[in-house]
Amino acid sequence: MSDAQTITELAKRRGFFFRANESYGGVAGFYTFGPEGAALKRNVESAWRDRFTVREGNDEIEAPTIAPEPVFEASGHLDGFDDMLVECGECGESHRADHLIEDASDIEEAESLPVPKVETLVAEYEVACPTCGAPLAGRSIEEFNLMFETGIGPGSGQRGYLRPETAQGIFVEFPRLKQYARNKLPFGITQIGRAYRNEISPRKGIVRTREFTQAELEQFVDPDDDDPPLSRVADVSLRLYPATEQEAEGGGYVEATVSEAVDDGIVTSEWVAYYLGVAREWYDRIGVDMDRFRFRQHLPGERAHYAADCWDAESEVSGAAENPEDPTDGDWIEIAGFASRGDYDLSKHATHGDDDFTVFTQYDEPRTVERAVADPDMSVLGPEFGGRADDIADALRDLAGRDPGAFGGETVTVGVDGDDVTVDTEVAGFRIETQTEAGEHVMPYVIEPSFGVDRTVYTLIAHAFGRDEVDGEERTYLSLSAEVAPTDVAVFPLVGDAALETLADEVVADLRAAGLSVAHDDSGNIGRRYRRQDEVGTPLSVTVDHESVETEPTTVTVRDRDTTAQVRVPVDDLVTALGTLLEGEGSFDRLLANYDRVDTDVTRS
Amino acid sequence: MSDAQTITELAKRRGFFFRANESYGGVAGFYTFGPEGAALKRNVESAWRDRFTVREGNDEIEAPTIAPEPVFEASGHLDGFDDMLVECGECGESHRADHLIEDASDIEEAESLPVPKVETLVAEYEVACPTCGAPLAGRSIEEFNLMFETGIGPGSGQRGYLRPETAQGIFVEFPRLKQYARNKLPFGITQIGRAYRNEISPRKGIVRTREFTQAELEQFVDPDDDDPPLSRVADVSLRLYPATEQEAEGGGYVEATVSEAVDDGIVTSEWVAYYLGVAREWYDRIGVDMDRFRFRQHLPGERAHYAADCWDAESEVSGAAENPEDPTDGDWIEIAGFASRGDYDLSKHATHGDDDFTVFTQYDEPRTVERAVADPDMSVLGPEFGGRADDIADALRDLAGRDPGAFGGETVTVGVDGDDVTVDTEVAGFRIETQTEAGEHVMPYVIEPSFGVDRTVYTLIAHAFGRDEVDGEERTYLSLSAEVAPTDVAVFPLVGDAALETLADEVVADLRAAGLSVAHDDSGNIGRRYRRQDEVGTPLSVTVDHESVETEPTTVTVRDRDTTAQVRVPVDDLVTALGTLLEGEGSFDRLLANYDRVDTDVTRS
Repeated sequence: MSDAQTITELAKRRGFFFRANESYGGVAGFYTFGPEGAALKRNVESAWRDRFTVREGNDEIEAPTIAPEPVFEASGHLDGFDDMLVECGECGESHRADHLIEDASDIEEAESLPVPKVETLVAEYEVACPTCGAPLAGRSIEEFNLMFETGIGPGSGQRGYLRPETAQGIFVEFPRLKQYARNKLPFGITQIGRAYRNEISPRKGIVRTREFTQAELEQFVDPDDDDPPLSRVADVSLRLYPATEQEAEGGGYVEATVSEAVDDGIVTSEWVAYYLGVAREWYDRIGVDMDRFRFRQHLPGERAHYAADCWDAESEVSGAAENPEDPTDGDWIEIAGFASRGDYDLSKHATHGDDDFTVFTQYDEPRTVERAVADPDMSVLGPEFGGRADDIADALRDLAGRDPGAFGGETVTVGVDGDDVTVDTEVAGFRIETQTEAGEHVMPYVIEPSFGVDRTVYTLIAHAFGRDEVDGEERTYLSLSAEVAPTDVAVFPLVGDAALETLADEVVADLRAAGLSVAHDDSGNIGRRYRRQDEVGTPLSVTVDHESVETEPTTVTVRDRDTTAQVRVPVDDLVTALGTLLEGEGSFDRLLANYDRVDTDVTRS
Repeated sequence: MSDAQTITELAKRRGFFFRANESYGGVAGFYTFGPEGAALKRNVESAWRDRFTVREGNDEIEAPTIAPEPVFEASGHLDGFDDMLVECGECGESHRADHLIEDASDIEEAESLPVPKVETLVAEYEVACPTCGAPLAGRSIEEFNLMFETGIGPGSGQRGYLRPETAQGIFVEFPRLKQYARNKLPFGITQIGRAYRNEISPRKGIVRTREFTQAELEQFVDPDDDDPPLSRVADVSLRLYPATEQEAEGGGYVEATVSEAVDDGIVTSEWVAYYLGVAREWYDRIGVDMDRFRFRQHLPGERAHYAADCWDAESEVSGAAENPEDPTDGDWIEIAGFASRGDYDLSKHATHGDDDFTVFTQYDEPRTVERAVADPDMSVLGPEFGGRADDIADALRDLAGRDPGAFGGETVTVGVDGDDVTVDTEVAGFRIETQTEAGEHVMPYVIEPSFGVDRTVYTLIAHAFGRDEVDGEERTYLSLSAEVAPTDVAVFPLVGDAALETLADEVVADLRAAGLSVAHDDSGNIGRRYRRQDEVGTPLSVTVDHESVETEPTTVTVRDRDTTAQVRVPVDDLVTALGTLLEGEGSFDRLLANYDRVDTDVTRS
């Protein structure tokens, strides 16, 4: 079995995730998280919230997943959110034409090619239908919109779509959100929730699904004034894979700190660089293997036209990469995107929506500005031009703002309904006025770090996956970090002894009262229970055995998942000892130094 | 303004919730939770998870929100999940016919009436279109399915629906979930997530929306063996509104403990009674006003045919009820349902789906059972009956199981393809066999406590809403419990003094490190900042003023939201003092007893 198959099998057997609705044959692209996976996913979301919402001082909202059509007309998704669809003339199966091209050739990112070019390439590479083998050359390629469509209300009602990203639910509410932020830039709004893409033919299991969870941050900044707190992450080291290196023969990684990346112009947006640094630290903290992690810059063709600079966080999930220095080795998946979107989104909604998508930013002190104005004398214009007088006056006012120099002579000429009209400058009432302004309306720029939660969960499992041999038997385990592991501690009483079960109940209650997530498992032999917890990544296991109650003080054994080393710890010390370990302060060696090591492996008892 | 309007206005102004997409005119039935509302909602979900998942020892999963059509064919939603739609012949607006009847008459629960009856009532009560006033008599009423429909994949693809309840995502995965539960009943699976109902014409703001969040628990039990741990909640007092009282003239509440409700047969399912007790305690804990809370039994007509007993938790949200003893006074909304669903759901999926929806429960000891079997002698039947011999043998085996007495005589007769065939009993090989069975396949029963999260949030705001006068000014506040309040503590430095701002930063950092959720607000005068926090329900506010740094030890003032009383507390005591209060141990009086009361109201400074 490949690593991907092994992980998928483990995920299904142990309750991380599995294809939904299999009793009904299932439908591609939908997965259910079982008890272990849902807990792991929740912990990832909490860790993200802690880092990107709370610690950054941002606010989180929850918008609906369905929105009416005009929102996606404005956002551009209705017109542009398409994949290239080719339908087989023989078997009728639909496929993504760009993916077929990539499989059949050395071409990468075929998505960015124009449709006619892809039609040509299908013929050129003699691409065949992956389902039935019939040739696809000559089949027309259609743009297929990836949004799920539905009707809101009865009858013709209103057309709605499931959101393809959580972001629009933030942009569209900007006029209200800026009020909660008291009209002060910069501020950030986050959202964690479901998003939907009606993929043509989802592949790659949980990596490409039709329904998934995003964690997005929209950072609104004043384009002229706001700088990120770069010093907080200046020394964080980034493994970067710039577009130039991707395009160069044998191009490789550039290792640079955040400040070097900015100073050397590798990352052009300081805000993007800041969040690359924050994200690098966060991924490391939750357990992504930094040797299988990189930031890849979008190639010019990949980039949306409004995105000045865009980087993806990518993880390697095959486990089969042989040369970690070779960026083309291994199976890399996108797990987050960092885009500088300018005012693209807000200006679109300002045009389509009926509200104010700017922020009125107050100057430190009111500013005095000089403005040219015209104040035409209607008592002259009225009698002279009759019904056209108002239009002429408007044209004069307009001209004063646009071209004050036009009022330099004796007369001034304006165009009204295609005719030139000339009036005495004196009648135009031209003058330079001094005005005091308290501030100005600013259309904020947006920096968007956008994370795929499901793919992060998958990466964590792939990177935590390990195999070794314990007591002569092969063992599979997940070395998940304590922060995200579904369970902190498992407690196992030897069965059949009431005193041990009572003690185990007490231990479980104490650990839960200390805020730990505890599994209480009294089924099967101890060795089997260890294996079960190893496979779901529980960092620590506590066993209550006969010695526990026979000795003074009462003790239990504590076992480390990764090394399987065991120590005997007095029950009174347990909460403190485990709490300290799980908070990441020190390793299991600390327990080994302080307590008696248990040499006889309990699995044999 | 009515209380509902006041709350809606407060919710919008302060960022609890507001109608989504208003820049595009909005669309009825969709709401966005702003920063305060999303935090309140998350806290409600966490409190629910703690009580109904963790403390009950249940497991939580996350299923997709879209499922393919066969799932809803099986669940009955495709056929039966309808509302009565009447379209106005004049203006074309659609309305719920049953609601119109209820508005026009004294009839309650018109939903349970048959369509022709409702058509008659529309004419009888001369119901007019609420939009344009045209008479609706004679308009036909249609059954409108409330599921949002969509297409999965390109082309004809597969039809799918947004789930109308989270429950089906649990039922449909039962064959896998029982494995994670190691095939042991009882076990419970929970899920918190979005559900969707394409309401004909949503009214009542956030109380009736088209997209909402449910928290559901499916408790799977062995119908013969499993009893709930009733003793845990035996003495919890319930305010019950049984169907008999609802139907009686002047009927009232029955106050009973959980054990009395079971013993007196008021609640017939012990599991339902158990969860009513758990829910009563939970609602009380998170801040639902128990004087505006009750459990109402479904009337016979409301009940789904499979639901043996069904109760709703209801809250009164108008604040205008005059007589709390009168169940017909006030505006009561359903906030949870508790149903005993038998094996309805699992047996439906067992019939429609291709999997095993039973649990094999092992007997404590293998059981010996006697079974009548036939083992026909084919060496006799074959030559005698030729091609029909196999069918005759099958018929004999079948008869042995059905009617062992038929083998009492010399001969035995079976029907094969319409003919009676008689053979010697000896040839039939009839005998009584003793078999050992290790267990049996059980189709579990389901008890379903199902909570509406949005309505719980609304109830908490409505019940926490208060008005009083402080310093001669009217004040609005939310007395939310510390467990669900969006923010635990607000910290206010007096502005313009760097020393105070530094101290405030330290206080904020200390409180956050202690796990508290802290708002740091330095804009506007102190009085305004107090009002803002009062309106979002922050229990405690800390002010850093000049006296803070002028005295030894360094102190801050702490203000109680509800009483506006203030004390001066040394900074070194702050984390402990506030932490204790927020965990619900003791009231603010404890601080008043231990520290100096501040008499001069800081709002005037």
